[in-house]
Amino acid sequence: MTNLRIGLLGYGIVGKGVFQLVNQQPGMHITKVFDLPSKKDVLRNLLVTDYKEVTEADDVDVVVECLGGEELPYQAITSALKHGKHVLSSNKETIANHFEEYMSLAKANDCSFLCEAAVGGGIPLLHNVIEIARFDTIYSFIGLLNGTCNFILTRLTKDKYTFQEALKEAQDRGFAEKDYRADLSGADLLRKGRILASLAFHKDMDYKTIPSFGIENINDEIFETVSKLGRILKFGVFGYYKDGTLCVMSVPFLFKPNHALSTLNYEMNGVLLECKNNSTLEFIGKGAGSLPTASAIMQDLMHFLRGGSRIDMDDMTTAKVVFVKGEEYFVYHDGKGEIIRANSVEELKKYEFVAKIVD
Amino acid sequence: MTNLRIGLLGYGIVGKGVFQLVNQQPGMHITKVFDLPSKKDVLRNLLVTDYKEVTEADDVDVVVECLGGEELPYQAITSALKHGKHVLSSNKETIANHFEEYMSLAKANDCSFLCEAAVGGGIPLLHNVIEIARFDTIYSFIGLLNGTCNFILTRLTKDKYTFQEALKEAQDRGFAEKDYRADLSGADLLRKGRILASLAFHKDMDYKTIPSFGIENINDEIFETVSKLGRILKFGVFGYYKDGTLCVMSVPFLFKPNHALSTLNYEMNGVLLECKNNSTLEFIGKGAGSLPTASAIMQDLMHFLRGGSRIDMDDMTTAKVVFVKGEEYFVYHDGKGEIIRANSVEELKKYEFVAKIVD
Repeated sequence: MTNLRIGLLGYGIVGKGVFQLVNQQPGMHITKVFDLPSKKDVLRNLLVTDYKEVTEADDVDVVVECLGGEELPYQAITSALKHGKHVLSSNKETIANHFEEYMSLAKANDCSFLCEAAVGGGIPLLHNVIEIARFDTIYSFIGLLNGTCNFILTRLTKDKYTFQEALKEAQDRGFAEKDYRADLSGADLLRKGRILASLAFHKDMDYKTIPSFGIENINDEIFETVSKLGRILKFGVFGYYKDGTLCVMSVPFLFKPNHALSTLNYEMNGVLLECKNNSTLEFIGKGAGSLPTASAIMQDLMHFLRGGSRIDMDDMTTAKVVFVKGEEYFVYHDGKGEIIRANSVEELKKYEFVAKIVD
Repeated sequence: MTNLRIGLLGYGIVGKGVFQLVNQQPGMHITKVFDLPSKKDVLRNLLVTDYKEVTEADDVDVVVECLGGEELPYQAITSALKHGKHVLSSNKETIANHFEEYMSLAKANDCSFLCEAAVGGGIPLLHNVIEIARFDTIYSFIGLLNGTCNFILTRLTKDKYTFQEALKEAQDRGFAEKDYRADLSGADLLRKGRILASLAFHKDMDYKTIPSFGIENINDEIFETVSKLGRILKFGVFGYYKDGTLCVMSVPFLFKPNHALSTLNYEMNGVLLECKNNSTLEFIGKGAGSLPTASAIMQDLMHFLRGGSRIDMDDMTTAKVVFVKGEEYFVYHDGKGEIIRANSVEELKKYEFVAKIVD
C-alpha cells in the first residue's frame, strides 16, 4: 500500500507525536482526527468530533487510538475493527481488559490489532516478540517497563532524593502519568505484563488474576536492608510459561548487582527474553515520551505501509495465572525485613513491602 | 506466501541450524541443499552438488547462503538474484565486499537481499535498523559485535586468564572463527560496521577505507594502565553520519564504567543506536552459535512467509569514510600509555595499541 490513510483518535501528547511523524513519512497521511471541538483552530478541516467519523470512514485504512480512559476507547476500537480497519492502540488499560476480544474481532473482520506503543514505548519490542514467538519458544520475560517507577527508584537509591522530590521531578519531566498511583501500585506494569505474556506465550488470561505488588510503602529502612543484602532494588514485571504453568506478576525485584537489568537507571525501560533457540535477548530504550511512543506507532504503521499481512494471534489459548510456590521473596513488616519462601499471594499480601529475589 | 520453498547453500554449522528450524516451521520447507557429495548420506535426495541447481531452480523461492569464503558465495548470490530469488546471507565477507552490487541486483530483479544473520547473530538487529531508519534518523551506532573478542577480553580483564587460555576456551566453545586473526585484527568488526552503516545511514562506501585497529598487541601493562584510568576496555565498531560526514571505525574502546556497553561481558553482543526521535535504543544478545544465527535467518524468512514486500535500499547514496580529527584516543607504545588527540589514521597506526575514549 503506497497511500496509507490514517485516522487519529486523540490529539494529546502521543497523538501530536504521531501527527508529526506521519506527516514526515512518504506513503502515508492523516485524513481525520477525532478530538474536542476546541482543537478546531489547530486541526481545521481534519477535526471530527464524533469518533464514528473516523472508525466508519471510507477514507481511513488504519485507526490510531491515542485516547485516555476506558469506555470511549473500547467503543471506538470495536467500531473500527467491525468496520474492517486496522487498529493501533497505545492504551494499556483497554488492551489489557479486552485483548482477546480485540484479537477475535480483528480476525473476524480480516484486519490487525497492534499495540507496539503500549509496552516499552519506542523500544522495538512487541513486533519482535510476536515474530520470535513464531519460530522460537519464549520461556520467560522479565522487564522494567515503568519509566516513572524506575526514575523514582533510581533517584531514591542512587541520588538519595526524598520520595516527594523524585515524584515531582518525574512529573515535571513528563514521565509520570496523570494518576501516578497506577504506576506505584503496579497496575500499569500488570497491564503491560498481561500484553507481553499474551504475545510471548500465545495465552489469553484474566488479567485481574495477575498478582501485583507495589512500591507505595517504600522507605529508607527498606533501602538500607536491601543494600546490606548486596542487592539492587528495581520494580517490574515477569512472566513465564512452562509445562502448562502460566506465571505473571508485577513486583519489585531484588537483583544481584551483575544482573543485566540492575544497571538500567532513571527512565530507561528494558526487557530480557529467555528463548529456546536464541538464548537471552535484551531490548532497552526510553519507555515514555511523545516521540518515542509515536515512534512505536510508526513501527506498526510501517508494517501496513510495506503491505504486511494481518498479524494474527489465532492460536491463542486460555490459561490460568498461577502463583509458583516455594520461591524466595524479601518481605518487610513492622521495621523488619527478611527473606522467606512464599506459598501464596495472600501470604505475601500481609506484608508492607514485598520484593522477589532474582539471581 | 504459505508454502515458502527454500534452497540452502552450505550444510555447515549455520546451515544445519537453518535446516532444523525451517523443518519445525509451518508454511516453509527446504527443497534443495547444495554441499559436497560426502553429505549424501544425511541429505539424500535434497543434496545437489552444483550451486546452480539451487540458484536457478524453479522450486526455490528463497536462497539461504551459509557458505564460507568469498568466490563461491559471490557466484551463487549473484546467480540467485539474477534469477529473481530472494537471497539471505550470513557471510559478512562477501556482503561487505559487494553490498551495493547485491542491493542493485535485487532491485533490478524485484527481489530482496537480506542479511540479518551477518551482524549480531540472533539479535533482532538489522531489520529493526532498516525499519527505524525509514521513519527516524539514526545519528550513530556503537556496538560490541564480535563475541570471540568480547569473550577473550572479559576472560583477560575480569578473570585474569592468559591470552592463550582465553583463546583456547573461545575456540573450544565454538565462538572463535576458524581464522581468529580476522576477529583480533578488527577485520570482522569492520565488515559488520560497513553493513550496519549502510543500513543505518543509507550509504554505500568503499569498506576497505574504514579504519581498523585490533587487539593483537594487547598485554598486561595495557590492562593495568586502563584500569588506573578507571576505564573498561572493550572492542567494537562505531559509526555516525552527520552533516555529510560519514565516520566508521573498528577500534578498541575505553568506556567509563557506567557506559551501557561496559557491562556486556563474555560472548554477548550489543549495539546502541542513537536516534533523532526515539532517543537511545539498545539491543543485546548472543552474537554467535548455530541456533542463534539460524534464528536470525528465520527472522528474515518470516518476512517472506508473511508476504512482506521487497526490502529496498534504493535511496542509498555513496559517501567517503572520513577520520574525524581532534578526538581522544589512548595510545600505547614502548611500555608507555597516554591519551592524545589524534589527527589522522596514519598517526594512530604508529602505535602498538590504540583505543578510542568513549564517555
